[in-house]
Amino acid sequence: MKQISLLGATGSIGEQTLDVIRSHPDEFALSAFSAGVNMDKAEQIIKEFQPEIAAVIHKDDAMKLQLASGRTKVVYGIEGLIEAAAYHESDVLVNAVMGSVGLVPTLQAIKEGKRIALANKETLVTAGHIVMKEAEKQGVSILPVDSEHSAIFQCLNGEDAKEAERLILTASGGSFRDRTRDELKGVTVDEALNHPNWSMGAKITIDSATMMNKGLEVIEAHWLFSFDYTKIDVILHKESIIHSMVEFKDTSVIAHLGQPDMRVPIQYALSYPKRLEHTRGSRLNLWENGKLHFQQMDLERFRCLDFAYTAGKMGGTMPSVLNAANETAVDAFLQRRISFLEIEDLIHETMQAHEIASAPVLEELQEADRWARSYVLSLLNKGR
Amino acid sequence: MKQISLLGATGSIGEQTLDVIRSHPDEFALSAFSAGVNMDKAEQIIKEFQPEIAAVIHKDDAMKLQLASGRTKVVYGIEGLIEAAAYHESDVLVNAVMGSVGLVPTLQAIKEGKRIALANKETLVTAGHIVMKEAEKQGVSILPVDSEHSAIFQCLNGEDAKEAERLILTASGGSFRDRTRDELKGVTVDEALNHPNWSMGAKITIDSATMMNKGLEVIEAHWLFSFDYTKIDVILHKESIIHSMVEFKDTSVIAHLGQPDMRVPIQYALSYPKRLEHTRGSRLNLWENGKLHFQQMDLERFRCLDFAYTAGKMGGTMPSVLNAANETAVDAFLQRRISFLEIEDLIHETMQAHEIASAPVLEELQEADRWARSYVLSLLNKGR
Repeated sequence: MKQISLLGATGSIGEQTLDVIRSHPDEFALSAFSAGVNMDKAEQIIKEFQPEIAAVIHKDDAMKLQLASGRTKVVYGIEGLIEAAAYHESDVLVNAVMGSVGLVPTLQAIKEGKRIALANKETLVTAGHIVMKEAEKQGVSILPVDSEHSAIFQCLNGEDAKEAERLILTASGGSFRDRTRDELKGVTVDEALNHPNWSMGAKITIDSATMMNKGLEVIEAHWLFSFDYTKIDVILHKESIIHSMVEFKDTSVIAHLGQPDMRVPIQYALSYPKRLEHTRGSRLNLWENGKLHFQQMDLERFRCLDFAYTAGKMGGTMPSVLNAANETAVDAFLQRRISFLEIEDLIHETMQAHEIASAPVLEELQEADRWARSYVLSLLNKGR
Repeated sequence: MKQISLLGATGSIGEQTLDVIRSHPDEFALSAFSAGVNMDKAEQIIKEFQPEIAAVIHKDDAMKLQLASGRTKVVYGIEGLIEAAAYHESDVLVNAVMGSVGLVPTLQAIKEGKRIALANKETLVTAGHIVMKEAEKQGVSILPVDSEHSAIFQCLNGEDAKEAERLILTASGGSFRDRTRDELKGVTVDEALNHPNWSMGAKITIDSATMMNKGLEVIEAHWLFSFDYTKIDVILHKESIIHSMVEFKDTSVIAHLGQPDMRVPIQYALSYPKRLEHTRGSRLNLWENGKLHFQQMDLERFRCLDFAYTAGKMGGTMPSVLNAANETAVDAFLQRRISFLEIEDLIHETMQAHEIASAPVLEELQEADRWARSYVLSLLNKGR
């Protein structure tokens, strides 16, 4: 029986993680979770799973929730988040919290020797050099929860990664796959939020349309699998059936396929090295698809992917700046303050203005993050 | 350095095996080979690779070849074939000989503890129960050389085969993929020999058009991977880019992809568990294909596949009868004695007339083989 700490239990990945735990009561139990500000869901989770620890953001919420929670201990703030992440009885931390707040709890859980099932992008994008070093030092496995990285992880199963020549991430192309840059000029927030294959949160759906999501995945893949950026490719594949691939030096390509269903990589990260039944999932019968489509990626069409390769290769604080500038710009787009294409412009200008610190420590990463956010805001306030 | 015995060196698989050996002179050396009746090629192989043993069919050929062969010992007949297969200095037997003559040398090489790289279909189709039992007893690995089985073998790398739910073999559909049964009535030998993706011998190209080739592969997969026939599926995939797949119980599907190139599975069977460079091969860039197509298999359209499932499930001597009846009927088609669709009728009638012996020993398999051939010939002579 694996005891699981789950950060971000009320988000999309969090809820699907709970579904995986629910489907395998003999394999998994929830020992701790964080729920942000959604007290109704937090209460439901406590009632259903009877965990030891529940973490919320605000002290007031914590006090109210404690009254309704019986023996579950309710904690709050960043300290509470860390307590839930590194809870001494947990075997695995599923980190599905959004934003850079996910980093410190992950590091603490690594120090406590827990397996990390990672869905929080910022952890590796901004601090891959710190996290992977610490994981190696502690002999801790970082298992990816993203379908693309889980696919690559599975394709490397039983293989010698040194014999792999290339990681090939697939990208659905998002809501605007078939539009030219010209046709992107007038797109609305609602159009951008209409993703063809995956049902996800607003931020990640926009990142999928700008291809920044894939860019962040390229940086994560670099850290997770220790692959040089020149050996990481992205290919457009609109059906999202091939989740990603690995090419080996004998020209063999191993791919992971399946219906788009996040519970598969979540479950794999929890059950690894075993595979468990996924009876609620749909089996893949390729004849039902009939055709799978592939298209070469165009870095001029999808500028954010280009920015991500650049930021990744430059390293240091630049990926943090890429990420923070993107978050702030996407926020401005969702607030209808800027147009879709201005997301790219804001990121680009911010990256150009940044002075990189190499091999940054945590504080420098946080400083770069703050700087990038305020720089984007200053550009916005200049009346963009 | 692996020493290799190669049976069937002058055929298509044999020549490509020699190409693999030639590409990796630090990894592989040819220690023994068989060449059938092609003395020119045999002489060239001896000259280039300087093996210890060369086996041919006829005594006269052997004597002539010995004169031109310096220190290479030339042997002949079935004893010669066995001597080449089980040559004491060889580490691996690549069995690429055609027909049931491949069986006994394989068994002898297994008894001598050599790794088997198997391209000879009859070995497993007719005597899977004997060969796999002997291999298990001797702790010998049977590595598939067929692209489909090699794909499955690679997809199972690092996995627990008990967690696999289904093997999915892909079939290009052969020369007549898009024709209805009605449109098959008048097809000629030349049309049948025109395979869209692979360049192979005449017999296997016809087997590809009738789908018998895939049927024999289903039976081989059953023995190689210990999968029940109900867990082996075939899907039509005309591009032959996905070579085969394995579905696991968490709905994950792992696939092996690549350009159609037999040197990849041949090399893998020799280099396993390592992968070596394949610098003469082409890398796969799926955007160059653009689309991959999939279609459900239709067992009424492709009756030979149905026959093979039936023969496999019935077991005993029936797969030997299937194979022998098919060989004889294809031969009659290539000699223009019967029409394309009569291949199926002859196999079907022969299977229906056969009385199965279960758990047959070698002699019973050979007897069933002889019976089936003569039964087909008797049907032919009755003026079909």
